[in-house]
Amino acid sequence: MSSTDSPLENLIRRMARLPGLGPRSARRAVLHLLRNRDQLMLPLASELDQVGRSIRSCIECGNYDTQDLCRICRNTSRDKSRICVVEDLADLWAMERAAVYTGRYHVLGGVMNAIDGIGPDALRIPYLVERAGAPETEEVILATSATVDGQTTAHYIAEKLQLCQVNITRLAHGVPVGGELDYLDDGTLAQAMKARQTLII
Amino acid sequence: MSSTDSPLENLIRRMARLPGLGPRSARRAVLHLLRNRDQLMLPLASELDQVGRSIRSCIECGNYDTQDLCRICRNTSRDKSRICVVEDLADLWAMERAAVYTGRYHVLGGVMNAIDGIGPDALRIPYLVERAGAPETEEVILATSATVDGQTTAHYIAEKLQLCQVNITRLAHGVPVGGELDYLDDGTLAQAMKARQTLII
Repeated sequence: MSSTDSPLENLIRRMARLPGLGPRSARRAVLHLLRNRDQLMLPLASELDQVGRSIRSCIECGNYDTQDLCRICRNTSRDKSRICVVEDLADLWAMERAAVYTGRYHVLGGVMNAIDGIGPDALRIPYLVERAGAPETEEVILATSATVDGQTTAHYIAEKLQLCQVNITRLAHGVPVGGELDYLDDGTLAQAMKARQTLII
Repeated sequence: MSSTDSPLENLIRRMARLPGLGPRSARRAVLHLLRNRDQLMLPLASELDQVGRSIRSCIECGNYDTQDLCRICRNTSRDKSRICVVEDLADLWAMERAAVYTGRYHVLGGVMNAIDGIGPDALRIPYLVERAGAPETEEVILATSATVDGQTTAHYIAEKLQLCQVNITRLAHGVPVGGELDYLDDGTLAQAMKARQTLII
């Protein structure tokens, strides 16, 4: 670096704090940006500023949008009777990319964890119970991760929802499509065997 | 993604164009930014904008700075008699990090390449010849890469500088510090053997 605390060096240091970028790749990214100032650097700056100022959490599901109600909650053609509970936004995006679900979401924003002090209130679980109790809701799909914390959270939510008149389901566990048995862990294989299904020809 | 062409999606698409980031890591980076808006996202936006608008090439050496003459060229305590010729800014930064050189630089901004049509003028070689011809200049160190194009460029520059009264040197080739012979290519090993030095105990 030419000298300490130049604006360029500050920028590189801040870029290096992004996940997936270290000091070396941050330098590479900044050089790439400097070579493409009008097409990439300045538009990126204004988009970061615009998104940073305008994006907020949807009051209903917790998805990010520029309005109080997100696009999914505003979309009247989506199935109001189903709520899919996901851990965070990345999971919601993954679900939307798969395009197999037309209902609504509830973004927890994390999982319950006693050590980190994350309890039901931080995950907006009371509000989920309220949504699940609404007359139009028929099914709550628990799509938390298959980790210890994710499953603990799912069980906690399932317990809380027992008084509501809704079906509580969870995503199937099993062999990933394209996955080889040889590389699969025992837990997944056991789940896949237990949940085996009749082959229809 | 919640829907097409939302500001958030545009931002992710632009982030994914940075070297080292793909669509998945761009999504992760944007989520990280959204979670740290005031500490990371908005400062990054303003720094990108500020650097994008204020940084220019040094009229002397081609280094980036906010002023016409860069910090290195302005620094009177640096050795004016040496010019180190590097391919691009990343190389200059690498040299500065190593902190073994106190002279000035000449950033070519690339290497000569007939196929891409990059000739001596695009690399500001005529201006380098002018700088090398100045009475204070004693040595020009050719620190281009050890690639075919880098070496071609170094030879071209050396030829152009023959009429100037300067020493022309190049970086030593050899075994990298910490490198194992077993993993080294034949070319490097041959260079290291040819340039072997008397061990002083």
